[in-house]
Amino acid sequence: MTYCTGILVREGLVMIADTRTNAGIDNVSTFRKLHVWDRPGERVVSVASAGNLSLSQSVMGLLAEGMKDPHSGRIETLETVPSMFRAAQLVGLGLRQIRHELGEALEEAGVSFEVSFLLGGQIKGKPPKLYMIYSAGNFIECGMDAPFLQIGEHKYGKPILDRAVTYDIDIYDALKIGLISVDSTMRSNLGVGLPIDIIVIRRDALATQVSARIEVGDPYFQDLRNSWSEALRAAHMNIPRPPYTSDSAATKED
Amino acid sequence: MTYCTGILVREGLVMIADTRTNAGIDNVSTFRKLHVWDRPGERVVSVASAGNLSLSQSVMGLLAEGMKDPHSGRIETLETVPSMFRAAQLVGLGLRQIRHELGEALEEAGVSFEVSFLLGGQIKGKPPKLYMIYSAGNFIECGMDAPFLQIGEHKYGKPILDRAVTYDIDIYDALKIGLISVDSTMRSNLGVGLPIDIIVIRRDALATQVSARIEVGDPYFQDLRNSWSEALRAAHMNIPRPPYTSDSAATKED
Repeated sequence: MTYCTGILVREGLVMIADTRTNAGIDNVSTFRKLHVWDRPGERVVSVASAGNLSLSQSVMGLLAEGMKDPHSGRIETLETVPSMFRAAQLVGLGLRQIRHELGEALEEAGVSFEVSFLLGGQIKGKPPKLYMIYSAGNFIECGMDAPFLQIGEHKYGKPILDRAVTYDIDIYDALKIGLISVDSTMRSNLGVGLPIDIIVIRRDALATQVSARIEVGDPYFQDLRNSWSEALRAAHMNIPRPPYTSDSAATKED
Repeated sequence: MTYCTGILVREGLVMIADTRTNAGIDNVSTFRKLHVWDRPGERVVSVASAGNLSLSQSVMGLLAEGMKDPHSGRIETLETVPSMFRAAQLVGLGLRQIRHELGEALEEAGVSFEVSFLLGGQIKGKPPKLYMIYSAGNFIECGMDAPFLQIGEHKYGKPILDRAVTYDIDIYDALKIGLISVDSTMRSNLGVGLPIDIIVIRRDALATQVSARIEVGDPYFQDLRNSWSEALRAAHMNIPRPPYTSDSAATKED
């Protein structure tokens, strides 16, 4: 399992990915699932992946080697595409190529073609963008109304994003809320775990401002986990107890 | 979709179920999924269901009509079983009977046998119990370490239960936290919706203390939703912003 989220705010873009992979709970490993192509001053493009690791790595390999556009015949990579939209198309193209090569064999082996990507970044002269690319190679773009996207084990960490993330929050608050979202997920699903890779791309900086790995025992993340648990417990205490009594005779005693 | 949760605390038992059913998002209805067998002074038994409505209703029908124990030959219902453990077995028996009757036809029709139950209550002279019964008829009992069980769309509402529910909390706090859990779920999945049915069974009362339906526009639930959103937004503000800077040259500017 994996959990990755991308958050797109006015000030820029945050990408977060855990590093846990597992083939059954008795075969757990650590793999980097967040990658960056960084050409300072010109572009910064980041990709996070969830799903079958062999498939996501194969797609990443194609993206690194470059793919021939079937229409134009040119070799393209994430370092050469002229727009983030084209970058999303390129990831989709890679996905379809891998499916073409492996789809039948995987089906025979009873392995489903499950893989998805988050693609975020900015290319000089254009605004920052965030996309989610599905396993068929189709994709959606993140908008300002719900300015985040998630792949992998997304449900446990969605309520906090739904409530706390808006397009106008500070980019470091976005990172903080993203880390709370990852913490909620890790707490409920052992398939998501530390270390966590994070990237912060500030609008128009055209470089990663933060690119770090949060390891087991990281003091800030440990504090965040404790503070958030504390805050959640405290938050519900301020809400009055329910006033409901029975439709029938019984009433609340205390 | 459905979301039901049962919370077992020292003071008793809370059961909560939404009422939304859908066969596709263009076919949404309201059905009661929380049922009570109440013999004041002797027992109170409550069942909540999730999954295929035709299957859960069929099992509930069998439970109401009574089932012949294949070993003893006696007719048993939830009003006659001598223990909650036997009640859980009876629900499992009903499930296996329905699967025996319908399983093959459903398989031919490509419909999966998806249905699960929460069973909670107390029978005179015994402690309150809470069980989750799976579609094969096997079941687990809720323990004091994680004193809640969930069926249906359980992920969105689990983080708050994980953090705020312990065996020693007040039973009306358990109800409140359960409602927050339902709210988080409703917010993220349109397949879960109002009205919500709630039941509170206080230990040794041997009757439902609260049995109510929370309708659209209910003022307490509306307040709870707003207060909780407010509290979540406020909670993360008290956590300091992340200190991470880039592994490479860039540092945080502000």
